[in-house]
Amino acid sequence: MSEKRSTLDKVMEVSLRRGLVFPTAEIYGGFAGVYDFGPVGSFLRENLINFWLQYFVKTEIDPPVYLLSGGTVLPFEVLKASGHVDHFVDPIVSCSSPECKTEFRADHLIEDATGQFVEGLDEQELTRIIRENNIRCPNCDSELADVTIFNLMLATKVGAGKGTVAYMRPETAQIMFLDFKRTAISMRAKLPFGIAQVGSSYRNEISPRKGLIRLREFEQMEIEMFVDPATLNEQPNFDEIKNVKLRLLTREGQEKEPQEILEITADESVKQNILPNQYFAYYLAKETVFYTRCGIPRDKFRFRHMKPEETPHYSGGNWDLEIELPRGENSQIVEIVGNAYRQAYDLGNHAKHSGEDLSIETENGENIIAHVVEPSFGVDRSTHCILEHCFREKGVDRDWTWFQFPNVIAPISVQVYPLMRKDGMPEKARDIYVKLKKDAGFNAIYDQAGSIGRRYARADEIGCPYCLTIDYTTLEDDSVTIRDRDSMKQIRVPLSKLVDILRQLLEENIKFAEAGQPV
Amino acid sequence: MSEKRSTLDKVMEVSLRRGLVFPTAEIYGGFAGVYDFGPVGSFLRENLINFWLQYFVKTEIDPPVYLLSGGTVLPFEVLKASGHVDHFVDPIVSCSSPECKTEFRADHLIEDATGQFVEGLDEQELTRIIRENNIRCPNCDSELADVTIFNLMLATKVGAGKGTVAYMRPETAQIMFLDFKRTAISMRAKLPFGIAQVGSSYRNEISPRKGLIRLREFEQMEIEMFVDPATLNEQPNFDEIKNVKLRLLTREGQEKEPQEILEITADESVKQNILPNQYFAYYLAKETVFYTRCGIPRDKFRFRHMKPEETPHYSGGNWDLEIELPRGENSQIVEIVGNAYRQAYDLGNHAKHSGEDLSIETENGENIIAHVVEPSFGVDRSTHCILEHCFREKGVDRDWTWFQFPNVIAPISVQVYPLMRKDGMPEKARDIYVKLKKDAGFNAIYDQAGSIGRRYARADEIGCPYCLTIDYTTLEDDSVTIRDRDSMKQIRVPLSKLVDILRQLLEENIKFAEAGQPV
Repeated sequence: MSEKRSTLDKVMEVSLRRGLVFPTAEIYGGFAGVYDFGPVGSFLRENLINFWLQYFVKTEIDPPVYLLSGGTVLPFEVLKASGHVDHFVDPIVSCSSPECKTEFRADHLIEDATGQFVEGLDEQELTRIIRENNIRCPNCDSELADVTIFNLMLATKVGAGKGTVAYMRPETAQIMFLDFKRTAISMRAKLPFGIAQVGSSYRNEISPRKGLIRLREFEQMEIEMFVDPATLNEQPNFDEIKNVKLRLLTREGQEKEPQEILEITADESVKQNILPNQYFAYYLAKETVFYTRCGIPRDKFRFRHMKPEETPHYSGGNWDLEIELPRGENSQIVEIVGNAYRQAYDLGNHAKHSGEDLSIETENGENIIAHVVEPSFGVDRSTHCILEHCFREKGVDRDWTWFQFPNVIAPISVQVYPLMRKDGMPEKARDIYVKLKKDAGFNAIYDQAGSIGRRYARADEIGCPYCLTIDYTTLEDDSVTIRDRDSMKQIRVPLSKLVDILRQLLEENIKFAEAGQPV
Repeated sequence: MSEKRSTLDKVMEVSLRRGLVFPTAEIYGGFAGVYDFGPVGSFLRENLINFWLQYFVKTEIDPPVYLLSGGTVLPFEVLKASGHVDHFVDPIVSCSSPECKTEFRADHLIEDATGQFVEGLDEQELTRIIRENNIRCPNCDSELADVTIFNLMLATKVGAGKGTVAYMRPETAQIMFLDFKRTAISMRAKLPFGIAQVGSSYRNEISPRKGLIRLREFEQMEIEMFVDPATLNEQPNFDEIKNVKLRLLTREGQEKEPQEILEITADESVKQNILPNQYFAYYLAKETVFYTRCGIPRDKFRFRHMKPEETPHYSGGNWDLEIELPRGENSQIVEIVGNAYRQAYDLGNHAKHSGEDLSIETENGENIIAHVVEPSFGVDRSTHCILEHCFREKGVDRDWTWFQFPNVIAPISVQVYPLMRKDGMPEKARDIYVKLKKDAGFNAIYDQAGSIGRRYARADEIGCPYCLTIDYTTLEDDSVTIRDRDSMKQIRVPLSKLVDILRQLLEENIKFAEAGQPV
């Protein structure tokens, strides 16, 4: 705790060393804003995505949610129609000194220098504020050039010769709008229904940060829920979540000092017209449950109502799920889910630009443009927040750092050790390991190097919840010890019941202490 | 069968209609070479990828195969070092008529016009052949311009201002080489070990074809197996596959008329020095098993030894898995897996360009550059071949087209129907559907529209292997009928055993006729 390094630095250090996250092209000096998930990290990411698919898509019966997997390169016309070509921009200002030339986000620079919140202002206004406040280059104190507008999409050209301009998609969402009609027809779907997608999106961020917060390539999990606007307060499963308490940071709450969080049930939030409708509140409630189960303490997140200047003109309400990162003095707030009630904007807009009829018939026989409620999750940002919040400092209850990942997302579920490298223990341990990994399908690691203590420490470092040890007793009576990461306690269980007990433990159906004989 | 349309046309028609594959941005006229997988197709793709991960990655114990998930945007330096900036090119020729200007692959044009095989020739030589043979524009018969060289990568710029050139990766493989050292260290891995990845790659194809064969954005499943060159013939699991018969099209076999396939065991192929080593033959054997289980008839594929002019200078052997598509007169051969023994090229090359030491210590304490055996699978091409080969024509044994997908990849496993929309049957059917989908995790569809016959036909069209019907008997004795797609026969089973029986059927552990009472 006496160390000066931030939690972020420590998390990134262990992530690099233990196969969670590697900078892309590190041997060439890295590539700002792009990361690889290593052998351990890719399981964490896979588990997170699978848990999301399970909770938000595959078990949703009514309304159904259909999963698509769409192209990541999109033609100019699509992003022109969606508004990204014209409006998906950042204001940039560069240092006028030929030696420096550093580029900055103009709005961030102004906010840092003056405390003024300037989102939504145009380049002339931003330039004027810079001049009025005599804001200069933070690097070399030279004068700054005029603010210019910079499109955040990664552009490319497709086809031979000069080619045609296309873009790497800046969000997965457009695919769901483009495929709305095909999905409805092919699945014989009627309103309400959702379309979900998990996939990469790309943004040419000016200043990617350390870690997985502001990436140029990032993974999204998005749902577009299409609803007849007449039934927005008739979400069929609303009763299941209506008593979930939401932590809301309303516009009024944001004005107070300190900011005031409103704790309110999903049900009341709709009844009091704080949230726009039941479909919207349904997702906020599910997100609350989801992130709590992912290991983010409930009091570290809240839904913030976007201010008017942060909200697109067509929006019926935008609330971001924001997580506070545990960085002591420099605590940082990170937006990880954007929730938007987009009304009829997207389908209406694409209908207009493409000339295609994107209306759909309601139960009353009317043709309408469906309204859209959209929760949009950042996979990498979620992973980052999980890493920071599940990180446990060295020196508190053990002499090494560790991750307290919930079982549902823990990248490795079980490690298998022979107590000693003799008397047939390695062979026995290896057999058990093969059974667990190959037959039972657990993400497992076999480790026979160093003392058992060292091996436990290595398992803790990647947040593995259970470690099995094969010892002399195993050779006598076919039992093994299971060590619990969190309590560091051990139980002994018969090999014949091992797979079943591990499954029950991993699914948290039984308590550790009750799963076997205490050791 | 009297229809003039090709199998491809029919497959694409039903794929579009039933939610398998949609052209990306179709409402804007589509986008050549980019496709979306619809709600049914995305399950087919997910099942194919999961089956591959299961068979090639997650159950591989010794040597282990580690899974990464890496960036798809790569900096210039990486692709300069890999040779893609200079050598990943196609020869292009355009029509000189200002009205036409159409662009063609020069090598394809020459091959079509003269039958001459010209891969590997440079632009001067290709131009000369065009002139000598007086090859003219196939569109308008005008003269053709000189051949130029066109890089196949999708380029973009990253960062503000003018930005820095970067590329969408043309293959997933580079990530495994870049992360080789980090993976070895973080996983405490010793040779041999593999690194696998599933993800998108991008190629700016000049002339994308119909279907999923030559895409601009495509998904790859790749393994780089890193081996000490002294142990290339000591693959630890070779015995398990040594008797698998491979269908090899050797260079000699390619010269014969008709071409001659060599049927030989994996074991003999190595002993006779036809394939370069056991690691290489191991993958060819596993691919044979894998694609047979994916529904490709064994006699429709073979491994073709690439000709010298198709083989990079550093290669120790390249054999492509090629599948013959069932198109009657116009039968087409499609390469779906590239197998390459890349020797020490990649790691040696990146070590040289990055200045990083990418050697690894062998068991003997020597520092060496690992050799690489690489099987590289195309997900979309595999999907395309599966679609065409599992497609069944209307009018042979039933009055509708259908897909005979093997259970392991069938996108929807089970459909649930009430016989009639009255007497509580819909409620009962709905309950069973919810249990199957939500609790048991099956990909399931509920359908109550139209006659049972119509519903069976719709299920067949998306290759669903089993359909359950809830009828009057169900209401009396809690039993349901299961209808088998392939035989169109029915059995009756008790509801209490339904989940278990379905699982056994889907895993092909029991035969359909023996799973219940014949109806």
